[in-house]
Amino acid sequence: MTTHNSDSIVKTDPSTEIDWTDDGPGETVLLGTKEKLRLACGAELGPFRVSYQTYGTLNADKSNVILVCHALTGDQFAAETHPITGRPGWWARLIGPGKSLDTDRYFILCTNVLGGCMGTTGPMDIDPKSGKPFGLDFPVITIADMVRAQKMLIDELGIEKLFCVTGGSMGAMQVLEWAALYPERVYAAAHIAGTARHTAQNIGFHEVGRQAIVADPDWCEGEYYKHERRPAAGLAVARMAAHITYMSEAALHRKFGRNLNDREALAYGFDADFSVESYLRHQGSTFVDRFDANSYLYITRAMDYFDIAAEHGDGILANVFKNTPVRFGVISFSSDWLFPTSESRRLVHALNAVSASVGFVEIETDAGHDAFLLEEPEFFRSLEGFLNGAAEQLGLNAPTADQK
Amino acid sequence: MTTHNSDSIVKTDPSTEIDWTDDGPGETVLLGTKEKLRLACGAELGPFRVSYQTYGTLNADKSNVILVCHALTGDQFAAETHPITGRPGWWARLIGPGKSLDTDRYFILCTNVLGGCMGTTGPMDIDPKSGKPFGLDFPVITIADMVRAQKMLIDELGIEKLFCVTGGSMGAMQVLEWAALYPERVYAAAHIAGTARHTAQNIGFHEVGRQAIVADPDWCEGEYYKHERRPAAGLAVARMAAHITYMSEAALHRKFGRNLNDREALAYGFDADFSVESYLRHQGSTFVDRFDANSYLYITRAMDYFDIAAEHGDGILANVFKNTPVRFGVISFSSDWLFPTSESRRLVHALNAVSASVGFVEIETDAGHDAFLLEEPEFFRSLEGFLNGAAEQLGLNAPTADQK
Repeated sequence: MTTHNSDSIVKTDPSTEIDWTDDGPGETVLLGTKEKLRLACGAELGPFRVSYQTYGTLNADKSNVILVCHALTGDQFAAETHPITGRPGWWARLIGPGKSLDTDRYFILCTNVLGGCMGTTGPMDIDPKSGKPFGLDFPVITIADMVRAQKMLIDELGIEKLFCVTGGSMGAMQVLEWAALYPERVYAAAHIAGTARHTAQNIGFHEVGRQAIVADPDWCEGEYYKHERRPAAGLAVARMAAHITYMSEAALHRKFGRNLNDREALAYGFDADFSVESYLRHQGSTFVDRFDANSYLYITRAMDYFDIAAEHGDGILANVFKNTPVRFGVISFSSDWLFPTSESRRLVHALNAVSASVGFVEIETDAGHDAFLLEEPEFFRSLEGFLNGAAEQLGLNAPTADQK
Repeated sequence: MTTHNSDSIVKTDPSTEIDWTDDGPGETVLLGTKEKLRLACGAELGPFRVSYQTYGTLNADKSNVILVCHALTGDQFAAETHPITGRPGWWARLIGPGKSLDTDRYFILCTNVLGGCMGTTGPMDIDPKSGKPFGLDFPVITIADMVRAQKMLIDELGIEKLFCVTGGSMGAMQVLEWAALYPERVYAAAHIAGTARHTAQNIGFHEVGRQAIVADPDWCEGEYYKHERRPAAGLAVARMAAHITYMSEAALHRKFGRNLNDREALAYGFDADFSVESYLRHQGSTFVDRFDANSYLYITRAMDYFDIAAEHGDGILANVFKNTPVRFGVISFSSDWLFPTSESRRLVHALNAVSASVGFVEIETDAGHDAFLLEEPEFFRSLEGFLNGAAEQLGLNAPTADQK
C-alpha cells in the first residue's frame, strides 16, 4: 500500500558505527544529519530516525496528506497487521478505501513518535556518543518535540502543507502542537478525545505507572538493556493501572461486572477469581512484549508536560490560537473520564473566543477514553464529515488513476 | 479514656508457646479459644486476637455502644494519636465530647479488622500450627468474617445489642454485614460512602495494587517476614494508585493543579516536577511504615469479594433486608467516584422496596471518596442528626455521672 520508497532516504551516518538501516519493519528516514533537532529541554538530537507507514496515494501536488498521530502506546502501524502482535492496526476501522480516512482519496502518513520503540529513535536505541543504548541519557522530550520531528519528516518528503492532522488522546496533543507551532503547514486539525493540558489526576496516574517501573529491580536504573533484563513486572503493573483509566466504569461493568473467571464460585485465594482481574493481567503481560519500559517513562513524561496554553499562550488558551488559519474539528466521548468532554469544551470555548473555525461534537458512548479506538459509527461519521467538508472547502484533488 | 480493662480478658493460650499478651498498644482480647471462628472459605480460625480501642463510658445497661468500623488502611485508633504515625485519629473530628459521635453520651468501640496489622490477628502474626508468621497460609477472609469476629468480641464484652454500627468505605461494608448477619443485635446502621458490592472498576484498582506488591522481589512469595525483608516499593505503588481513587479530579486540581514542586520551571527529568507527584510519592512512602503488605492483599481481597446481595439475597439486594428491624442512615458524597452516590441510591431503593426505615443524604463536596475522613460539617450534622433521632426513638440513656 505504501508509495514512498524509503531506500532512497535511509542513510548510513558515516560519523558512527551505527547501521541506521537496521530499522525494523516499515519505512524509516534518517533526520537531523545536517541540522540537529533542537529540543524543548535545550538539548540537540541528531542524527535520529523516524519510522513511519503510509496508506493511499500521494496526489500530484502533495496536498492530500493526513498525518495521523498515535497515542501513548500506539505506533505507526495504524492500518495494517502489527508486526509484533499480529493484530489489526489500531485505526484499521477508520483508515482504508471508502472508510472515514479514505485511502482512495487521502494519503495517510503515520509516524512512530520520538522517544518511541518501533523504529523512531528512543531510549532503547544506540546513543551515537557512547555507542550504547541511551537509557536515561536520552533527553526528556515533549509533545512539541515529537511534532518538530514530524515536521522535519514532511520537509524531507517534500510535503508543503498537511491537509489534516488528526489523532486521539496523546495524538490529539500532537494535533494542537501542530496548529500552534506550524499553523501555515496545516489546513485542518481533527482533535479527538484530547485535552489542552494534562491534569493533576492524569499526572498522578502516570506517576503511579512510572514508579511501578522504576521499583522493578530489573529496571536497573534504566540500564536494563546491557544487563539483558527487562522490567516486565513493573511495566505490566503500569499498563494495568493505565488500562483501567481508558475504560469507563459502565463499560467495565457491562463487559465484566463481578463475573468469575472460569470458575463456579469464589476460590478464596489470590488467583484471578474475577474476569476483570484476568483481563487486566492479560493486558499487562501482553503489553510488555511490544513496548519498551523506558519509552513508557519518556512518553508519559511528555504527556505530563503538555499544557499548550502555558507553552504558547502565556497561560491563556485562547492566545495560542489567535488569528489561526487552521480549521478545527473537536470530538469527545461522553464517558471519557481521563480526558473528559469538559476539557474539549474548554478548547472549543478558547477557539470560539478568537473566532477560529471550529466544529464540536460529543459522542454518546459508554466505552470511555478508549472509544476513539473502537467501533463507534457516530464518531466515524463525524470525523468523515469534518474531513469531507474541509476537502470541499479546500477544493482538494483526489489522486488520479495513473498516480495510484 | 478507655473504661474496659483488657487484662482480665487477655489469656495465654496453654496449647502454644505464643505470648498472646505481646499485643502492641491498646486493648486486646483473645477469642476463639473454645469455639473457633468459622470463616466463609470453610477454614476455622482460633485462637485469634482482636485489638480495639474505646472512647466514652458504657452505660448501665450497655445500650449506648456505637461500633465504628474502619476502612481498608484504617485501624482501631479512631480518636486518639496514632501510636506509629503520631497523627490524630482518623475520625478524631467526629468522636469526642459534644461531637457527632458524642463520647458524653455514647460508648465508642473500634476494632482492628481481622486480617489487619495493628494487633488483631492477620497474616503477619504467628500461625499457632507452624510457630511462624502465617504469610499466605492465613486464610482468605471476607467482610462477613471481620464482622463475625467483631460479634464474638461484643459477646465477650457482654454487649447484647449495639446502639449503632457505622463506618465509611470498607467500614460501610461491615455496617451492611452487621445488618444482614445480626439484625437483632443492631439498632441503627449508618452507612457512609459505601456500596453494596465491589464493582469491576473497584476490583481492577485493587488488583493493580496487589500486582504491584507481588511483583516486588522483596515480597518473597509472601514470606518476607522470615527473610527480614519488606516489599516497601510495591506497597508504596499500591498505595499511590489507591490514593488517586480516594480524591476527586476537582480536589486534585484545587490542591495541586499543574503546580510545580519547589521549582520555578520544568526540570526535564524524572524527579517529582509536579506537586501532585511529590504528594503521591509521600503518600506511598509513609504508608509502608505503618502497614503490612500481606494485610493489604488480604483486606483488598475481602473488599473485592463483597457483594451483599449475592451473599445473603440470592443476588437481589432487597431480599437481604426483608423484615429488617434495623434503622438505616445512608450518606454519600457527590464527588466520590470510587463508591459513587448511584451505589448508595441502589441500596436506598432496595431498602425502600422492603419498607425498611431509611434516611438518605448526599453531601455536596469536591473532596471525593476521602470526604468521610475530612472536615465536612454537613456530613457531621447529618450523622449527628441520624444518631440523635435513633437515640430518641430508642429512649437511650446516657451514662450517669457516677458511671463515668
